Amino acid sequence: MRPLITFVSDFGLDDWFVAVVHGVLHGICPESRIVDLTHTIPPGAVDRAAFVIEAAAPDFPPGTVHLAVVDPGVGTARRALAVSAHRQLFVGPDNGLLGWALADPSAEIYELVEPKFFRQPVSRTFHGRDVFAPVAAHLGLGVEIASFGPRIYDPVRLPPTDAVVRDGQLVGQVMRIDRFGNALTNLHETAIASAFPGATERDLAVVVGRRRIEGVARSYGDAPIGTVVAIMGSSGRLEVAQVGGAVAEYLGVGEGDSVRVLRRS
Amino acid sequence: MRPLITFVSDFGLDDWFVAVVHGVLHGICPESRIVDLTHTIPPGAVDRAAFVIEAAAPDFPPGTVHLAVVDPGVGTARRALAVSAHRQLFVGPDNGLLGWALADPSAEIYELVEPKFFRQPVSRTFHGRDVFAPVAAHLGLGVEIASFGPRIYDPVRLPPTDAVVRDGQLVGQVMRIDRFGNALTNLHETAIASAFPGATERDLAVVVGRRRIEGVARSYGDAPIGTVVAIMGSSGRLEVAQVGGAVAEYLGVGEGDSVRVLRRS
Amino acid sequence: MRPLITFVSDFGLDDWFVAVVHGVLHGICPESRIVDLTHTIPPGAVDRAAFVIEAAAPDFPPGTVHLAVVDPGVGTARRALAVSAHRQLFVGPDNGLLGWALADPSAEIYELVEPKFFRQPVSRTFHGRDVFAPVAAHLGLGVEIASFGPRIYDPVRLPPTDAVVRDGQLVGQVMRIDRFGNALTNLHETAIASAFPGATERDLAVVVGRRRIEGVARSYGDAPIGTVVAIMGSSGRLEVAQVGGAVAEYLGVGEGDSVRVLRRS
Repeated sequence: MRPLITFVSDFGLDDWFVAVVHGVLHGICPESRIVDLTHTIPPGAVDRAAFVIEAAAPDFPPGTVHLAVVDPGVGTARRALAVSAHRQLFVGPDNGLLGWALADPSAEIYELVEPKFFRQPVSRTFHGRDVFAPVAAHLGLGVEIASFGPRIYDPVRLPPTDAVVRDGQLVGQVMRIDRFGNALTNLHETAIASAFPGATERDLAVVVGRRRIEGVARSYGDAPIGTVVAIMGSSGRLEVAQVGGAVAEYLGVGEGDSVRVLRRS
Repeated sequence: MRPLITFVSDFGLDDWFVAVVHGVLHGICPESRIVDLTHTIPPGAVDRAAFVIEAAAPDFPPGTVHLAVVDPGVGTARRALAVSAHRQLFVGPDNGLLGWALADPSAEIYELVEPKFFRQPVSRTFHGRDVFAPVAAHLGLGVEIASFGPRIYDPVRLPPTDAVVRDGQLVGQVMRIDRFGNALTNLHETAIASAFPGATERDLAVVVGRRRIEGVARSYGDAPIGTVVAIMGSSGRLEVAQVGGAVAEYLGVGEGDSVRVLRRS
Repeated sequence: MRPLITFVSDFGLDDWFVAVVHGVLHGICPESRIVDLTHTIPPGAVDRAAFVIEAAAPDFPPGTVHLAVVDPGVGTARRALAVSAHRQLFVGPDNGLLGWALADPSAEIYELVEPKFFRQPVSRTFHGRDVFAPVAAHLGLGVEIASFGPRIYDPVRLPPTDAVVRDGQLVGQVMRIDRFGNALTNLHETAIASAFPGATERDLAVVVGRRRIEGVARSYGDAPIGTVVAIMGSSGRLEVAQVGGAVAEYLGVGEGDSVRVLRRS
């Protein structure tokens, strides 16, 4: 099977940075299939990119290599990592970017120290090209993850953004306003099921800003145009949407805003 | 031959939606070559995406699979389709998006109802990933189009935007202002030839807004900088352009504006 | 080895122009791997695209085919070229776009005149699809570069933007403000080494606008947040950056601004 390598970065699409990473991947692993997750992560927004990986990676087949480069600490002493987790492989800087992989209890984490796998000379400012892409390509070739350096146990982790139960309510936040103006939250269906055992979608209500939404809809299309609905999204997380509209604008909801789920009384 | 699959959507490039569709395509059909037509279709703009398919598909080889996902009705009772037409294959929602394929008199249209070809569980909001991409990938693998469901004969069609003859003039519209500020129309060279039999490019004039352009130019470069020209564009449709400039801004022309072709007297 | 073809243009990502070029490449050379350098070059900005090729091409393997289409003269008498240089191949219009290839003293330049390699009929406005992509694809298939037409010796060259030595200083310019707000210059490390023989990074100073920067830093991360640094960038050219910030905004530096390197006294 030809290796599948995804790539997320904050490089943007106006310069050649994304392309030369593709060039390095193809140069080392000519049979690789490369899928760009997105490259319009705001510069240095590690948390944003970490959420993209968390949302996208589960939809890729086992064995996929995920290359992630949002690396404001390039050139400092921050470590470089490869992680085996969720039956996939992850490569990126040790700054929390790979948090979803690290959260797998069976994750194995390795520090990238073996220079023979790097592009030489290693630049001071572009480890995406010189360190991370070559390692991802070698993983694609089937090189053992333990070959790149020692196993470590103390990776950098971002502050958790998981939803928490408080006063009988499940409290999370808006992680992303998508292109359609939908508010994607971090309220995962498993967390909701755990917080409200036995509850059906009709038994729950969702509060965002001053708006309370009764029940969780089955799809955008069930309700009349203009209705605000809460809906279980395609990555298993609760979304707030407006049928035929952009809820973020309509309700004035933004990223980081609090979202609560509660049992209807 | 490795299957060639194009993909157009309104998903934008900032989220991971395009990428996970690629992941599904690669997961089912590892040898597929994927070409993104564009993903910056305005959300829900079915007509805009339909025009992109109409303009782009003829330049792809026979057997190409075109995956199209502009799907504001996702989660409602709208049908999902696969179409065999113009010696190519098309997959998308039944909302007019595949209009160019449907316009082929020999088109065969099938409703996608066979769940064994879908990604399970099918989400309520992301049929691009769960229904359309898996079907496109199976078509790429060579699965017979009749395997996905029953043949149907009543697909949804958008109101026609074809040019019409009125008072001896051929009347169409600006379909798209491209990145260079050129006004791309729906006036196809075959419609012009049919409306003005025997006319050469010198015998015709084009009217857009208050501007009348004498003759149809051979290229952007024939006339001095600043000249407004009508020219037969690369997809066989009339374009209005300004040599070295952006005609849309210069003449105040926009999408939807009327364009007329007439015989010079 | 499957052919590697890069593609840079000013076509943007909103239309289908990039995609149909991919379609033509895949149609002729089904095994090609295509890497988009960037397609958001401002319309007609030949110099900008030329710099992208110069910065990106050295990171691609020998044998790579670089397809470049920024072609405001399409439809005029401007020639079409294929160039063998730097152990790679280049295809594009004869307007200076391929300047980095032409600067190789061992470059071999051919005019594309052999219609059997073109997509027929050749349109008046889209030679990217009809002339350049088919030639790039045939080069990918291994067709000899001399097959496409006669060798020529008088290609169009852009005015040089190379740095010059003046009054003991090396004077260059800002070529590009990248997504991170870094000012990328044309001051190549070889030019600096040649102008200041024996000088270490501590012996030099860099002047941009009214700001003088002492020494050349080893990485963005060496100095405290907010510090303005000069640094040797990943493509071997001097960059001016602000640690943790956007120097272009901070110093009011823009593309085309003068940058000087001098020996600290």
